Amino acid sequence: MIYFDHNATTPLTATARAAWLRAQDEAWVNPSSPYREAARVRIHLEAAREALGSLLGAGAERVVFLSGATEAAAAVAQHLARTLPAGVRVAMNPTEHPCVLAAFGAAFPGRWIALPVTPEGRVETARVAGMVDEAAASSAPIGAVVVMAANNETGVLQPWSELARMCRARQVTYVCDASQWVGKLPAAGLGAADWVFASAHKWGGPKGVGFLLRASPADTFQGLLGGGQQRGHRGGTEDYPGVAAMMAALVEAESGQVLWETERALWRDAFVHAAVAALPGSRVVAVGAERLWNTVSLTLPRHEHLRWVARLDKRGFVVSTGSACATGHEGPSHVLAALGLDPEAMRRTIRISAGWSTLEKDWLALRQALVTVSAELDAAPTK
Amino acid sequence: MIYFDHNATTPLTATARAAWLRAQDEAWVNPSSPYREAARVRIHLEAAREALGSLLGAGAERVVFLSGATEAAAAVAQHLARTLPAGVRVAMNPTEHPCVLAAFGAAFPGRWIALPVTPEGRVETARVAGMVDEAAASSAPIGAVVVMAANNETGVLQPWSELARMCRARQVTYVCDASQWVGKLPAAGLGAADWVFASAHKWGGPKGVGFLLRASPADTFQGLLGGGQQRGHRGGTEDYPGVAAMMAALVEAESGQVLWETERALWRDAFVHAAVAALPGSRVVAVGAERLWNTVSLTLPRHEHLRWVARLDKRGFVVSTGSACATGHEGPSHVLAALGLDPEAMRRTIRISAGWSTLEKDWLALRQALVTVSAELDAAPTK
Repeated sequence: MIYFDHNATTPLTATARAAWLRAQDEAWVNPSSPYREAARVRIHLEAAREALGSLLGAGAERVVFLSGATEAAAAVAQHLARTLPAGVRVAMNPTEHPCVLAAFGAAFPGRWIALPVTPEGRVETARVAGMVDEAAASSAPIGAVVVMAANNETGVLQPWSELARMCRARQVTYVCDASQWVGKLPAAGLGAADWVFASAHKWGGPKGVGFLLRASPADTFQGLLGGGQQRGHRGGTEDYPGVAAMMAALVEAESGQVLWETERALWRDAFVHAAVAALPGSRVVAVGAERLWNTVSLTLPRHEHLRWVARLDKRGFVVSTGSACATGHEGPSHVLAALGLDPEAMRRTIRISAGWSTLEKDWLALRQALVTVSAELDAAPTK
Repeated sequence: MIYFDHNATTPLTATARAAWLRAQDEAWVNPSSPYREAARVRIHLEAAREALGSLLGAGAERVVFLSGATEAAAAVAQHLARTLPAGVRVAMNPTEHPCVLAAFGAAFPGRWIALPVTPEGRVETARVAGMVDEAAASSAPIGAVVVMAANNETGVLQPWSELARMCRARQVTYVCDASQWVGKLPAAGLGAADWVFASAHKWGGPKGVGFLLRASPADTFQGLLGGGQQRGHRGGTEDYPGVAAMMAALVEAESGQVLWETERALWRDAFVHAAVAALPGSRVVAVGAERLWNTVSLTLPRHEHLRWVARLDKRGFVVSTGSACATGHEGPSHVLAALGLDPEAMRRTIRISAGWSTLEKDWLALRQALVTVSAELDAAPTK
């Protein structure tokens, strides 16, 4: 299997696996228990909090460990609904992940608006600033801006650093889902946003563990209620083995992998040029925008995406129709819709997402497979 | 370390470890993705759902995988607050785990009442039935009864099977936190309760994974919102490796371990008799009640529990002051308070909780250590 679906999930890295096993052997007791062995685990857990905080440019007190981005999005949306002034609205990027759209939609019914995006799906800081300023004088000011760091379907990068500065200057809360950014590009500086979250399994850590940065050490955030773990910010026995594995994968990505980004982006670009040339009528979604080095959203000239996915699968290449979570539904992609693709073109679009283990020859082989499958599908009787 | 704190958490079993590693190698792709490898993971995940359902006596469609009991308690409380008729009250056992008390307290502010318990902390079905019947005629009927299967601090077993029948007959919802029951006693029949949940790390599975049984395949339960995973009942990428490990540990406990329960209860009883005889003035909390074979809540004759815990720790015996999650706080135990212990006696109470790996000689050694520590503490200058 040549795996081009890293935006859905990634294999566990060897270092994460080793960290998890070691923690299961040596640091499995409950860190909230009152004996020395538990104190040792507590120390490890707090060291992980420090490491993550300093990686993101945030104080360790802001770090909350939890089950992943979906839990984090729900908890942040509910916290903001409780704590933002009544009547305030949330301005949300329409290409957010479904869990973010659903969480904020449920927490702010009738009180959220979609931010405009460029034809490539990029949020423009100046326009957001204009909207915030205009709304400030109205009866329903914008209390929070929700814009992800990088898009899971197209790979488009958002100007999160600028947005964080702009929001801070206006005392508006900035929520940043960094799930697709962390582990692929340097995480430094993400702490400038108020609320930041991600899931470890997107960068070689285990499923079921992730992190949230709270807005400030002084906020009243309470995620899951329970036994007062994590200073009351998130109930539930802390999963130190999961945290250890998450951090091992992240440190590895940060210290070794992100250095290779330029080369990886060149491989992607070479693939894009060759694939578009070899498949006339195909195009890459948001091709002009700054995008993750690993992601290509490719609209093919003919045939439904599921047929492409199935044929590529038979040849040993794993690609996706869109975000994994949306796959069960097979409705049109809200991300591509926000970029103005017509429904017919959406149904011809596949998502290709590489990983650090993907080599240049894998990209070349995928291009060749696309050409072969194209010919097969053209020759096949229409379903 | 001789570990007597299994109610806080357990070491990962060898079978769970092997299952996790195998799933990380062979079944790590996103089960919601649209290719054959993902379909394979989906099949494994659904097989786990079937296995768990049949173990609990419930249809597989009722099984939701999630991060653990804390998440489940919050999700069930919020679901019931949304769906029970307005004005209806919840009747809750006062010795529930803090995460259950907090979740239902937050979801039903001013609308929950504490059930009466016997001096041993047991809920009596007939009294609950009487309360439900009496309230039925009032303006605030009881819509849900919340009673755990077994208590984490005292080990006291609740009559969940009777309660499930009684509630069903009255069309009242029954919520059962089975965290301390599952893996220690046979789980068969727990599906008779409407909502049942537990955390894998209490029975040798990994931290960060657990299950919830929904009330019925037809209910509208939605936990975390997101990408439509688990048929919309819980968003977030499914942690199949975690589920595989949870199920491996549970199947092992069910098929091999629970057969040894009688012998284990005899060891506990022998310990209790000998310890109480050797430490005049000590007593076991709820000693007359049916209790888990592994748990002893022991009120010591003198000295604060933290001093006992620390001295035992130095001798290599790990016991706890109460539930791990409450340890950070060191407030008096709400469980012991509900049983009528006075605050001073609570501060002399330790929790001892064995596991399947605990041997008779460990109990004997612990008893001896208690005697030694008792003499040490009596001789030590008072702090």
